[in-house]
Amino acid sequence: MSKTNRGNFFEDFKVGQVIRHATPRTVTSGDQALYTALYGSRFAVQSSDAFAKSLGYSHAPIDDLLTFHIVFGKTVPDISLNAVANLGYAGGRFLAPVFPGDTISTVSEVIGKKENSNGKTGVVYVRSTGYTENGTEVLDYVRWVMVNKRVAANPAPEPVVPELPSALDPQSLGTAVPLLDTANWDNDLAGSEYRFDDYEIGEKIDHVDGMTVEEAEHQLATRLYQNTAKVHFNQHTEAHNRFGHRLVYGGHVISIARALSFNGLANAFHIAGINGGRHVGPLAAGDTVYAWSEVLDKADIDGRSDVGALRLRLVATKNRTCHDFPGQDHDDNYLPEVVLDFDYWALMPK
Amino acid sequence: MSKTNRGNFFEDFKVGQVIRHATPRTVTSGDQALYTALYGSRFAVQSSDAFAKSLGYSHAPIDDLLTFHIVFGKTVPDISLNAVANLGYAGGRFLAPVFPGDTISTVSEVIGKKENSNGKTGVVYVRSTGYTENGTEVLDYVRWVMVNKRVAANPAPEPVVPELPSALDPQSLGTAVPLLDTANWDNDLAGSEYRFDDYEIGEKIDHVDGMTVEEAEHQLATRLYQNTAKVHFNQHTEAHNRFGHRLVYGGHVISIARALSFNGLANAFHIAGINGGRHVGPLAAGDTVYAWSEVLDKADIDGRSDVGALRLRLVATKNRTCHDFPGQDHDDNYLPEVVLDFDYWALMPK
Amino acid sequence: MSKTNRGNFFEDFKVGQVIRHATPRTVTSGDQALYTALYGSRFAVQSSDAFAKSLGYSHAPIDDLLTFHIVFGKTVPDISLNAVANLGYAGGRFLAPVFPGDTISTVSEVIGKKENSNGKTGVVYVRSTGYTENGTEVLDYVRWVMVNKRVAANPAPEPVVPELPSALDPQSLGTAVPLLDTANWDNDLAGSEYRFDDYEIGEKIDHVDGMTVEEAEHQLATRLYQNTAKVHFNQHTEAHNRFGHRLVYGGHVISIARALSFNGLANAFHIAGINGGRHVGPLAAGDTVYAWSEVLDKADIDGRSDVGALRLRLVATKNRTCHDFPGQDHDDNYLPEVVLDFDYWALMPK
Repeated sequence: MSKTNRGNFFEDFKVGQVIRHATPRTVTSGDQALYTALYGSRFAVQSSDAFAKSLGYSHAPIDDLLTFHIVFGKTVPDISLNAVANLGYAGGRFLAPVFPGDTISTVSEVIGKKENSNGKTGVVYVRSTGYTENGTEVLDYVRWVMVNKRVAANPAPEPVVPELPSALDPQSLGTAVPLLDTANWDNDLAGSEYRFDDYEIGEKIDHVDGMTVEEAEHQLATRLYQNTAKVHFNQHTEAHNRFGHRLVYGGHVISIARALSFNGLANAFHIAGINGGRHVGPLAAGDTVYAWSEVLDKADIDGRSDVGALRLRLVATKNRTCHDFPGQDHDDNYLPEVVLDFDYWALMPK
Repeated sequence: MSKTNRGNFFEDFKVGQVIRHATPRTVTSGDQALYTALYGSRFAVQSSDAFAKSLGYSHAPIDDLLTFHIVFGKTVPDISLNAVANLGYAGGRFLAPVFPGDTISTVSEVIGKKENSNGKTGVVYVRSTGYTENGTEVLDYVRWVMVNKRVAANPAPEPVVPELPSALDPQSLGTAVPLLDTANWDNDLAGSEYRFDDYEIGEKIDHVDGMTVEEAEHQLATRLYQNTAKVHFNQHTEAHNRFGHRLVYGGHVISIARALSFNGLANAFHIAGINGGRHVGPLAAGDTVYAWSEVLDKADIDGRSDVGALRLRLVATKNRTCHDFPGQDHDDNYLPEVVLDFDYWALMPK
Repeated sequence: MSKTNRGNFFEDFKVGQVIRHATPRTVTSGDQALYTALYGSRFAVQSSDAFAKSLGYSHAPIDDLLTFHIVFGKTVPDISLNAVANLGYAGGRFLAPVFPGDTISTVSEVIGKKENSNGKTGVVYVRSTGYTENGTEVLDYVRWVMVNKRVAANPAPEPVVPELPSALDPQSLGTAVPLLDTANWDNDLAGSEYRFDDYEIGEKIDHVDGMTVEEAEHQLATRLYQNTAKVHFNQHTEAHNRFGHRLVYGGHVISIARALSFNGLANAFHIAGINGGRHVGPLAAGDTVYAWSEVLDKADIDGRSDVGALRLRLVATKNRTCHDFPGQDHDDNYLPEVVLDFDYWALMPK
C-alpha cells in the first residue's frame, strides 16, 4: 500500500462525496506582492490600502484571482492529478473579501460524473468552496474535468450531469464588496475616467499590450498556489507528451488577461462572478498573450447605487494581436491562436 | 473614442501641466522580499529591523531604489509609453524613509519640452514626486525622455529647457535618515570596516562580482513596479525591433549595480540623492552585469556628525569585468560594454 | 589595500577563530511567500497560521530550510567564497522556531582545518550558529568545505579534524516545536492519514513527482538567502568552468527534494536535525529533480507523547525517476544521476 498520492481516477469519485483538501494556507502581503510581480496587475483597490480604505474597505483585499488560484490549487491533488483536460468552469461567486492574514481552505463536493463514449475517460463535476478559518465562505465555483478511468473495462456508472447556470444572476453578486463611498473614487488614481455608465452592451475593447510568458514565471505562480499538476513542472516527462514541453496552468492565462484588461477596464475593480470559462488552447513558455473584452451585459444590483455589474467576455490569444477581436470562425471553431474564452461579472463604480 | 490608453505623444504635453498618476501602491514586506530575491541586496539597514532600530529608525526602511522604481513605474503610462529613449535623470532627492505599510502615489509636472531638429521627436522634461497617503514627499527627481510626435508636420513649440543642477548640494540631503546612534553601528554585521573617513576622492573600486540577468527576473521586477513600458515584456513585437529582443528596464540595471557595489561600499547604506544618470547602452537577458565605483566628492552635512556624504559614480558594464574601470574612450565615447553611468550621493557613517 | 572582499583562503582560517557574519536579516511573510513559490512546499504547519495555532504554536513558523538557507547564506562571503567544493554537513540542530519578524544573524567558529595531500587546497571545518535579535539560537550545524590555498608553497598547518556525530541523539531534538495538541491534528488538512506509527524502519518511498529547475528560479532563491557564491550567478565566467554553465546552489536541491517528499511524508512537518548531507553531483538549470526517502530509524523523545522522530534518508536525482530508489552501485559509487544524499530527523505526530 503506497503512502504516495497518485491521484484519483474516474472510478474513485462518487456523486455526493465530500472531499476536504489539504493544505490550509494563510494568505499574506507576500503572496500579493508576488501576484503583482507575476502579472503587473494595477487595480487600485487591490494595490492600495489607502485607496481601499477611502471607499469603505478595512484595507486592501487581495486580488480576486489570487483567491481563486489558491482555492483551486488545493483541489488538484484530489480532483485533477490524473485529469486529461480541465474542461470548464461555471457558477463561480466571490462571496467575501480576502485580506492578508486570512487562512484559506477548500472543500469539494462531487456533483456529477459521466463516462465518455470511448470508455476510457469520464467527466467529473465538482463544486469547490473556499472558506476562511472562521468558516466564512469566500468563493465557490463548479468545474468539470476529464479524468482517466483506472480500468477501461470497468462498467460505466449511471450518468449524473448537474444543471449549471449559463450566467449568474447579478442580484446574487457583490457580497465581497462593502457599500462604497464612491464620492472618494478618484479616477486619476484608479487609472480611467470611464465608469459604469460609459460602457455599452456589445462594446469591444482591444487591450493592446502583450505579455510573454517564461517557464520560471508560470512555475513560480503555480507553486505559489500549491497547485501540483504535473504537466506544469516536469520537462523530463513533458518532453515526451504530445506538445513536447510543459503546459502553462490555465489560471495563469486568466490572470495575465485580467491584468492586461486594466488598459480599457481600469475601473472594473472586482470580479464578482465567473459565469463560465474555457481553456480553448494550450499556452507554452515563450508565447505572448494578448487580450480583448466584450461587454455582454450590464445590470444594476438591487440596493446598491455605488456600483453596477458589467458582464464581460475576456478572450486571450497567443502570438496574435487583438485589434480585430479574434475568436471563433464561421463554423464556431476557435481560431488556433485563441487560448481562453472567459465570461465574468465585474463590478464598476457608477 | 478608445477607452484604451495608447500613451501621450510630444504634442500632448504642456509646460506646467500636472499629471496625477495611477496606481497608488501600498508597499509591503513582500515587496522588499522580492527586491532582495531580485538583486541580493545586503545593506544591513534595509535588511534588518533590529539593526535599523539600534541606530534610531523605527524599523527597517525599504531599499531606496525600490522606492524609486515604484515612484517611476507609475509615470510610464502617462509619460513614456511612446518614449523612444529615456535620456537622463537629475536632481533626485530621497526626502523621507519609506516603510512597509506606506502607500505611494506619484504626481508629475511637465517642466520643459523641446522639439528635435528631425521634426519627428522631441524631448519632454518632467519632475515627478512620490508621496505617501499622508502627503509626505518621499522622492522627487527630474527625468527627460525622447517622445514621438503624433504628426511630424505639427509645428514645433517654443523650446523650454529647465536648468538642472549638475549635482545636488549635499546640505540638502539626508532628510530620509534620522540622526543615527552610530555607536551602535556594527561593522561586522554591516559587512565592512571602511567608513566615511576611509574613502578618498578619486578612489576607484572594482566590485568584482557579476550577475547574469534572466528574462523572468527583469519581467518580475518591472511588473512589481507596475511599470508598463512595452519593450520589456513583449517578445512577439520586440523580435522585430532593432535589437531583436526585449530590453531590460534601465532601473533594473541600477539596482543590480547598486547591489554589486555592496562589495566595497557596504557601509554606503543610503542613496540620498541622484545627481544624474544615463542608460548608455541596452541590456538584454543573458547579459552579465559588472560594476565599479569612483568617489567623486565627499562632504560633511551641517548639523550631522553621524554620517557624511560620498558622491559616487557607479558604472555598470555587460559581459566585461571592471578591473580596469571601463568607461569612455579618448574621444569621450562610451565603450560598447558600458550600460550605465550613474552619479549619486550616498550616506555613510563616520 | 582593496576594500573589496575577495574571500578567505585556506591560510586565513585559524582553529578557534570566531567570525561574526554580515548581514542581519529580518525574515518576513514575504520571504515565506517566495519560499512557497520557489518550491511549492505544502506542509500545513508552515502554511497556515490557523493550523499551527490549533496545535499550540503562536502562529505558523517559517519553513525550517528557509531558516537554514538564511543562516547558511551569511557564511558564504567569509567561509566559502573561494571554496572548491562544499563537502558536507553534520550535527545540524533546529533549536527554536523562527517566525516572521525575527531577525537572524550568524556567527561561525572554525573548528578544524587540514591541508590536502596535493598541497594546493585544504579542508576547513566550521560550526555556524544562527540566532535571533534576542540571542535565541535557532540553528547550529557543522559544514566542511574545500578551500584553495593562497600560496601552494605555504607550509601545511598541524591538522585538526573535529569529531562529528554520525547521527544526532533524538533526545536532543524537538526544542523548536511546542508540545502539540495533536487531538487537533487534522489528517485531511495535513494531507496524509499516515502518522508516526505507520512508518517502518527500512521502508522506502518514491515521491513520484519531478520538478524542472530554471536559471531565474535558483538565482532568485540564492539571492533571497543573500548567498553570494559566484558559481550560481555569473554565466559570463561560468561558461568557462569545467561544466560550462552556472551551478545550482546545493541548498536549492535540498528544498526541492524536501518539497517533493510531501507526497508520501506529508505529516513529517518539521526537520528537527540534520545528521549529514552530501551534494553528490552538480545540478544545472534544465535538470529535473526527483526524490525518494528511506526510513533509517525511529525514536520516541523523552517526555513527548505528541510526536516521534523519524530518521530519514532523502535522495535526490536529476533526470531519472526514483521508482527503483537509485543510490550507490555495488562499489558504493553514486550513480551519475544522484545529486543529493541527505540524512535528517523529522518529527511526525503520533
